[in-house]
Amino acid sequence: MRSLTVFPKEEYELRLKKVKHHMEKAGLDVLFVSDPANMNYLTGYDGWSFYVPQMVVVFLEEEDPYWFGRAQDVNGARATSWLAPFQLLSYSDEYVHARDKHPMDVLAAWMAQHKQTVKRAGVEMEANYFSPRALESLKKGCSWLEFSDANLLVNLVRIVKSDREITYMKKAGEIAALAMKAGVEASVEGARVCDIAAAISKAQISGTEQFGGDYPAIVPLIPAGELTYAPHVTWTDEKIKAGDPLIIELAGCCRRYHAPLARTVTAGPVKSEVKRLSDAVIEGLENVLFHVKPGLTCEELETIWQRSIARHGFCKDSRIGYSIGVNYPPDWGEHTASLRPGDRTILEPNMAFHLIPGIWLENMGVEISESFVVTADGCETLSNFPRSGEFLPS
Amino acid sequence: MRSLTVFPKEEYELRLKKVKHHMEKAGLDVLFVSDPANMNYLTGYDGWSFYVPQMVVVFLEEEDPYWFGRAQDVNGARATSWLAPFQLLSYSDEYVHARDKHPMDVLAAWMAQHKQTVKRAGVEMEANYFSPRALESLKKGCSWLEFSDANLLVNLVRIVKSDREITYMKKAGEIAALAMKAGVEASVEGARVCDIAAAISKAQISGTEQFGGDYPAIVPLIPAGELTYAPHVTWTDEKIKAGDPLIIELAGCCRRYHAPLARTVTAGPVKSEVKRLSDAVIEGLENVLFHVKPGLTCEELETIWQRSIARHGFCKDSRIGYSIGVNYPPDWGEHTASLRPGDRTILEPNMAFHLIPGIWLENMGVEISESFVVTADGCETLSNFPRSGEFLPS
Repeated sequence: MRSLTVFPKEEYELRLKKVKHHMEKAGLDVLFVSDPANMNYLTGYDGWSFYVPQMVVVFLEEEDPYWFGRAQDVNGARATSWLAPFQLLSYSDEYVHARDKHPMDVLAAWMAQHKQTVKRAGVEMEANYFSPRALESLKKGCSWLEFSDANLLVNLVRIVKSDREITYMKKAGEIAALAMKAGVEASVEGARVCDIAAAISKAQISGTEQFGGDYPAIVPLIPAGELTYAPHVTWTDEKIKAGDPLIIELAGCCRRYHAPLARTVTAGPVKSEVKRLSDAVIEGLENVLFHVKPGLTCEELETIWQRSIARHGFCKDSRIGYSIGVNYPPDWGEHTASLRPGDRTILEPNMAFHLIPGIWLENMGVEISESFVVTADGCETLSNFPRSGEFLPS
Repeated sequence: MRSLTVFPKEEYELRLKKVKHHMEKAGLDVLFVSDPANMNYLTGYDGWSFYVPQMVVVFLEEEDPYWFGRAQDVNGARATSWLAPFQLLSYSDEYVHARDKHPMDVLAAWMAQHKQTVKRAGVEMEANYFSPRALESLKKGCSWLEFSDANLLVNLVRIVKSDREITYMKKAGEIAALAMKAGVEASVEGARVCDIAAAISKAQISGTEQFGGDYPAIVPLIPAGELTYAPHVTWTDEKIKAGDPLIIELAGCCRRYHAPLARTVTAGPVKSEVKRLSDAVIEGLENVLFHVKPGLTCEELETIWQRSIARHGFCKDSRIGYSIGVNYPPDWGEHTASLRPGDRTILEPNMAFHLIPGIWLENMGVEISESFVVTADGCETLSNFPRSGEFLPS
C-alpha cells in the first residue's frame, strides 16, 4: 500500500515535540486531540470521517501518538497517516450513532492500562466534533484521570508554519486565484448564482495541471444584490441583475492548506455607493498589507485599518482577519490570533492570515480580502488577483 | 427584503407542535437546539455560520422559538427564517473565538428573565457544533436550570417527512443522478480523480435548468484502485488506470434535502473479483428494495440483505443504511434509524433511507447504493441511474 502522507516523518516529529513541550508546561500526561485539523497536523490522517467520534491520543512519555476511530476508517488511516498499524485503534460499527453506548467508552477502556502512570488529561473543550456526550463518556470511563481544558494547545503550535507548509499555502493561493477568475467570468447579467458557484467549485477542485485542489473548509459564499448584507448566505437559484453587487468569498485548498480570497463584483456598471465603499475597503486593505512586518501585534494592524476607513466616514465593529492554515469544515480559520482590538499576538515570519475587512451596511455589503504570509521584513500575498472593480465583466 | 424561507409557515408550526409534544413528554420547559439541521427544520434558518456557536431556543409555553447567533448573521436569519425580528437574538463579534468569554454567556444572561417559569432544560448532548465548553457556559450562567439530554428529540420528529419535504428529496434525487452521470462520464482511463470530483461538484451545484443544487453535507468520496478499501478517503490527484475500480459516493442536495447515491465504476474491463462482488451487492440491494414496506422493521431489512449476500459467500458487519433528509456538513444521515441488527424502528410511509450496503475487502471495496422513500405499499427510489457496471465508459 503506497502512502499518501503529505510531509516527511521528521516534520511530524517536530510538531509533536512542540506539542509535548506545551503539554509539559500545562502539566498534562496525555492529550486527547479531537479537532480534525489537529489530528491531521500531528499524524497526517485525512478522511471525511469526522462525523463520527475520533481522536488522536498523545502521551507525554511515549514517542508516537495513537489514532482512534471507526473500524472502517482504519484503512484510511493506514493510507494517509505515518503511524504504524499498532498505533491505529478502533471501535466497531455497533457504536456508530448508538443511543446506549458511545465510542469513547472503548477508548476509555483502552486507557485503563495507563492508570498507574497517567494522571492528568487535556481535552479540547471547544473543538468541532467533540461533543459533551463524548466528554462525559470519556470522564466516566477514566474516572481516575483529572481533566482540564487544553483547547487551542495544538492550534497555537500551528500558528507558525514550516516552509513546507507555506509551499502548500502558495499552491492553495494559485488555486484561489483560478477559482476567483472562474467565478468572475461566470458573473454575467442573467446568470444564476448557483451556476457561478458551480464554476467556482469545479475550478477549486481541478486546481492546476500540476496539482489538484482539495475541498475547502467552507463552500463558496456568494450573496448577491441585497443579500450582500448577509455574509454567510451561500447561494440561490436567482439570476443576477445588472448593477447588483455580488460578493464572492472562496478559498483554494491544497492538501488541506487554505488560501481564502474575497472579491465584490458587479455585472454591468458599478453603483456609486458600492464603488465608494469598495474604494475605501481596498485602500484600508492595502494600507494594512503595506505595514505588516514581524514584531507588530494583531491589534496594531487593526488600528491601521480603522484609521484608514475612518477617513472615508466608515467604521467596522467586527474583526478584520484571522490566522489560517490546515483545516477541515466548517472553518478555515485557526481560532487563535484575530486581527482585532485586544489581540496582542506578535507577528512572526511564516504566520499566515486571511485579511478580510468586509463592511456590511443596512442593505448591501462589500468584501475584498487577501491571504498573506508574514515574511522576514513584510508580507507576501498568497493569490494574485486584481482587487478593484476594473476587472469586472460587463 | 424578500423571504427565502422554503416552506409555508403552517409547515413549521406543525413541526413545532410535534417537538413541543415530545418536550412535554420528556418534562422539558425549554429546548436548546444546536444541530444546524434541527435549527433549519424549526425556523428555516440557512447559512454557513455553524462554525460559531448558535442556537434555536424553544419554550414549551411560548408559541414561537428564538434564534440566537452572531450579530453579523442576523441579516441571514431575517432573510431565510420565518421568525419576526424580535425573535432574533445575537452576540457581538468580540465573543467570536474569544478565550475569556463565550457566546453562551450572553444567551444565559438573556435566559434570566425566565427564571421563575422555566425549570427544566433539554440540550443536544451529541449534536455537531455544540461543544463541551458551550454547555459549561450555559450551565454556569443558568445555574437555576436543571439540564437533561434531549439528543435526537428533534431528529426523531424529522424521521417522517411531509409531502412537501419529499418533493425536495425527489429534486435532490434528480440532481444526484445528473452528478453521477457527470462522474461516470469523466471516469476515463488517464483522468485525474480530482477532475472527476470537479465534474461531479459542478453538476451537484448547477442542478437542473428548473432548480439549482445546494452543497451536499459530504463532498464526493471517490476512492480509486486499492484506495477503494478506505471508504472515507475523498480524492487524490492520481490518474485512473485501466481496470481499477473507482467508487463514487455523492448526493444531490436541494434546499438542504439530500438524496445520496453510490456506484462502483471501472475504466476499461471490470476485474472478475470486482464483478463478482458487485453482482452480489446489487442482488442484495434489489432484494431489500423489493421487500421494503410499511410495518417492517429496520433490522428485518438488514436480515434480507445478509441472507442475500450469504448465498455468494460474503458477509458485512457494518450497518447497511440510515435515515436521511434535511442536513448540513459533516453528515447527511439523521442519526436516528439505522438498517442494522437491533434497530426495531418500524417503517412508515414518508420515511427516507440511504441504503448503502458497501463491502470492503482487504484490498478493494464496492459500494452501490440507492436512496428511497417508503410509500403506502413499498418504496420509491429517489434517483434513476443504472446499477450495474454495464453503463461504464471504456
